[in-house]
Amino acid sequence: KNILIVPGDGIGQEVTAVGKKVLDKIAAKYGHDFSYDEALIGHAAIEATGAPLPDESLEKMKQSDAVLFGAVGHPKYDNDPSAKVRPEQGLLKMRKELGLYANLRPIKLFDELLSASSIKPEILKGADILFFRELTGDIYFGEKGRKDNGDTAFDIAQYSRFEVERIARKAFEAARTRRKKLCSVDKANVLETSRLWREVVQQVAKDYPDVEVEYQFVDAIAMLLIKDPKKFDVIVTANLFGDILTDEASQIAGSMGMLASASIGDGTGVYEPIHGSAHDITGKGIANPMASVLSAALLLDISFGLKAESEDVINAVDQVLKAGFRTGDIADATTPKDKILGTEAIG
Amino acid sequence: KNILIVPGDGIGQEVTAVGKKVLDKIAAKYGHDFSYDEALIGHAAIEATGAPLPDESLEKMKQSDAVLFGAVGHPKYDNDPSAKVRPEQGLLKMRKELGLYANLRPIKLFDELLSASSIKPEILKGADILFFRELTGDIYFGEKGRKDNGDTAFDIAQYSRFEVERIARKAFEAARTRRKKLCSVDKANVLETSRLWREVVQQVAKDYPDVEVEYQFVDAIAMLLIKDPKKFDVIVTANLFGDILTDEASQIAGSMGMLASASIGDGTGVYEPIHGSAHDITGKGIANPMASVLSAALLLDISFGLKAESEDVINAVDQVLKAGFRTGDIADATTPKDKILGTEAIG
Ligand SMILES: CC(C)[C@H](C(=O)O)[C@@H](O)C(=O)O
Ligand SMILES: CC(C)[C@H](C(=O)O)[C@@H](O)C(=O)O
Repeated sequence: KNILIVPGDGIGQEVTAVGKKVLDKIAAKYGHDFSYDEALIGHAAIEATGAPLPDESLEKMKQSDAVLFGAVGHPKYDNDPSAKVRPEQGLLKMRKELGLYANLRPIKLFDELLSASSIKPEILKGADILFFRELTGDIYFGEKGRKDNGDTAFDIAQYSRFEVERIARKAFEAARTRRKKLCSVDKANVLETSRLWREVVQQVAKDYPDVEVEYQFVDAIAMLLIKDPKKFDVIVTANLFGDILTDEASQIAGSMGMLASASIGDGTGVYEPIHGSAHDITGKGIANPMASVLSAALLLDISFGLKAESEDVINAVDQVLKAGFRTGDIADATTPKDKILGTEAIG
Repeated sequence: KNILIVPGDGIGQEVTAVGKKVLDKIAAKYGHDFSYDEALIGHAAIEATGAPLPDESLEKMKQSDAVLFGAVGHPKYDNDPSAKVRPEQGLLKMRKELGLYANLRPIKLFDELLSASSIKPEILKGADILFFRELTGDIYFGEKGRKDNGDTAFDIAQYSRFEVERIARKAFEAARTRRKKLCSVDKANVLETSRLWREVVQQVAKDYPDVEVEYQFVDAIAMLLIKDPKKFDVIVTANLFGDILTDEASQIAGSMGMLASASIGDGTGVYEPIHGSAHDITGKGIANPMASVLSAALLLDISFGLKAESEDVINAVDQVLKAGFRTGDIADATTPKDKILGTEAIG
């Protein structure tokens, strides 16, 4: 199996190195033959080639069996709204070109982290949510630009029936293997794209009579998610809403540093932490690599069908936590100083 | 002073009745002369006249000195994505026609409700946030529709420099009277409207060198808001992001039932709870009317300049809570049964 490592920017470099080491260990332990290559994306790619996703990187992605990805972004562009070339363009192009229309984000709390969240432990205990975020449509990929001499800006949100249906089916299928509950999130009381979304989900639901479906407005669920996360099983939503809600939901898992995601679709799958490039802590060796490690676990499971290996990785994370080791982001007041480790050590 | 009562749908009726009673008490106590009229909006207006905001209602709003508004919405439309006439159109038309471009949502926890939230008390204690949500632009008001025989839906998000600047100035002015911190929220790494937004806020910031400005992406702040709410003072953001974030932030205030909002702009101000029509509890007499009462307090303060009267109302809410009375939504396991009151009784 060929695995392409695409670290990207900021702490993406540090955490992906740990994720790769874990894949290496698994290969050795189970006698698999994993070969690796690397590719550039984001700010790193812009600096080296001028493009946020060079053709060579894209080609390598298409040729590989799976991609372990880090993060993209750089404060330089964030504070310069007029920059024409931006790291995020590389990420969006990768998603589009690889047809990665479904982004799976499992939100599950390791018992040991019950107290690491700002949310009360009794609210969190037992919460287990699987997000399906649509990843190649919506306002991310519609036409955008300026009018009136640059004084007016616009972005077009757009969805086709086909796009909604394929992600809805994936979510229903997943719900079947879980607690058989699906919550579809939209803003159908205001947006036409949301009304199409709801229409299609209602239609698809007929093929899954065994799955209990609920519809929520995005504003309502932004509240319900932290008020009573145990209510939810599978949640399916559009690209922008999914971006916001899954980051919010990271508090359910104790920290953003613990959340992995799988982007799948027509070809090569891409596995990545949901956290960003975090330039404020880059180079300090303190980033939490567990989201990358758990991304590697998703890669083993989903792209390679190696279920036992994947569970082995998740158990390893669990053991590290059970042994009391923490990175700074998930440590609390009771964590002994010598149990707080850096990126490499905890890896 | 002429106050127009616009209860709207669902629990809007029940809670607005309490808000009005409180205004009455204040008028009696301080010797003011408040006269009232009523107007229809939403589902109630559709049933009576066919239109979600009849001309007569709009005319009355324009003529009045302030509007105390309830909520609009009905499950009938939510589950019928193809309905052409919808209650929410009345709300959006009211906002647009009255030029209500700034929606102020103060998020502050009454000490007695520290334990009512799903968030830990030590995270919440001392949090005090004032949201400025832009209310007449963005994807709410751009062109929307269908293409490809109805198989593709689109919504256009749009902002002009002028629209961003006027809400930004209001937010900076407010920050000056508070802790002098402003956080502007956008998604400038993806959206052109957000890049214009950030450009304009950066420009306006030059006129307020005494205010410390921070820029956050909407996904990041959806997480930070519940991770560390004390970090924030004034938050300014676009219509859709504001809709999502303020509902989420209701958990900081213990419950959605406690949050009031003021919509202001070119003419008559409109005061309303941030909660919706809540048809699941409509008619049961158990809705929490405090958001409407606190909306009345905002009305007294902002539209009538009656600061002492406004504080009197807020203190009254505080006293009721201190005396241990609760509606069901803010009761906890330790609340004695006989202290849990219905809408009217707690009013
Ligand atoms: C970096 C950014 C463009 C990206 C997104 O909005 O999709 C990120 O927030 C994510 O969730 O992967
Ligand atoms: C009812 C709905 C259209 C409205 C909105 O999205 O603005 C509501 O959620 C609000 O926040 O006032």
